[in-house]
Amino acid sequence: MKHVILLRHGQSKWNLENRFTGWTDVDLTEKGREEAKEAGGKILKAGLKPEYFFTSFLKRAIHTLEITADILDRSWIPVIKDWHLNERHYGALQGLNKAETAREYGEEQVHIWRRSYDVAPPALTLDDQRYPGNEERYSCLAYDELPLAESLKDTIARVRPCWAEIIEPHIHTYDSVLIVAHGNSLRALAMMLLHLTPDEIMKVEIPTGAPWVFELDDRFSVLKEYYL
Amino acid sequence: MKHVILLRHGQSKWNLENRFTGWTDVDLTEKGREEAKEAGGKILKAGLKPEYFFTSFLKRAIHTLEITADILDRSWIPVIKDWHLNERHYGALQGLNKAETAREYGEEQVHIWRRSYDVAPPALTLDDQRYPGNEERYSCLAYDELPLAESLKDTIARVRPCWAEIIEPHIHTYDSVLIVAHGNSLRALAMMLLHLTPDEIMKVEIPTGAPWVFELDDRFSVLKEYYL
Repeated sequence: MKHVILLRHGQSKWNLENRFTGWTDVDLTEKGREEAKEAGGKILKAGLKPEYFFTSFLKRAIHTLEITADILDRSWIPVIKDWHLNERHYGALQGLNKAETAREYGEEQVHIWRRSYDVAPPALTLDDQRYPGNEERYSCLAYDELPLAESLKDTIARVRPCWAEIIEPHIHTYDSVLIVAHGNSLRALAMMLLHLTPDEIMKVEIPTGAPWVFELDDRFSVLKEYYL
Repeated sequence: MKHVILLRHGQSKWNLENRFTGWTDVDLTEKGREEAKEAGGKILKAGLKPEYFFTSFLKRAIHTLEITADILDRSWIPVIKDWHLNERHYGALQGLNKAETAREYGEEQVHIWRRSYDVAPPALTLDDQRYPGNEERYSCLAYDELPLAESLKDTIARVRPCWAEIIEPHIHTYDSVLIVAHGNSLRALAMMLLHLTPDEIMKVEIPTGAPWVFELDDRFSVLKEYYL
């Protein structure tokens, strides 16, 4: 039997300030660090020993992984950091306070951006300092891979090849892997693992710091899933 | 021009207790964490931007790297963790206090073990709980790769292929790499980079937390080396 553990990063500074974060690289709060420790403790207590780690290019996920790995006494486990596992890109909303955005665009419009499957928020322009093409870490991406804004559908479309080409081959080799990422990139993985429809995945809310365990058979069908 | 930065991990709990550490996986002290932060600050100030990280399987090096990377705002940089970069294996001396060892074996004998090039300390037996073959993290190693005790010469012999096969190819692709490891595995790298003799390398003492920068030309000859 195989185990895939999904873990959403702990509280970040902008979660706390209620701002749209997306690809903005904000760090964990002290509470977020505590959540990462608790997640490690739960995985340890469950006796799970992940043999490969995956995370995004964003420090709130990477630091959550580092803290969790330390609690597991498994800092030595290999890690793949992949931008495909980044949070949904929130375009021109990134950095804005959610309440302010609601006042500016209206509650209903913000609700559509946050809760629809295939509507992207307003796009960044290429001269915006938030455009990922301006950042060294994304310099390896082709022009058409660099998002200006993403719907959940767009996020799922770029997580899918990371699952198929990077993560799945490792699950062939290793019995247990841990993926530390973000609300929407983890939704994408859960959608694939559980064969959910767009309507179904949009109802899934993944809590921070709670390891979500999927037990898979040898053909990668989910036998059981549960939170620790 | 290429940059290779060597960094010895900060103070560990057993450095503080003056015990032979070797492959024992002891963590950093608070002072060690501070040293890692300072090392990050020095690299930042020098304007160096390492594009690939290498470290050992031991948490005092891995945690030093994680802290340094955070200060550099480069937690997203890919990292290779490789047991070949571990500290020299100190065999049956691992865990013993250096003063006690001197009383038991004599000052001169301990001096020989610590300061000779090709004399290994007393070997572990296979039933010793300190034998690395008992640890999950070394389960991928072949029987004859698992050390029972190492001379500095033995350590250098196993670091060499890691340099040639893993690190050097990355220096072809990337302009700057950071290697966070241990006193003796870093000596091995310095010996190769500077073409030192055994007598010369044994006189080299690498301080903790001080980034040692090597500037290389396109044929990987050292143009200049200095501590930050």
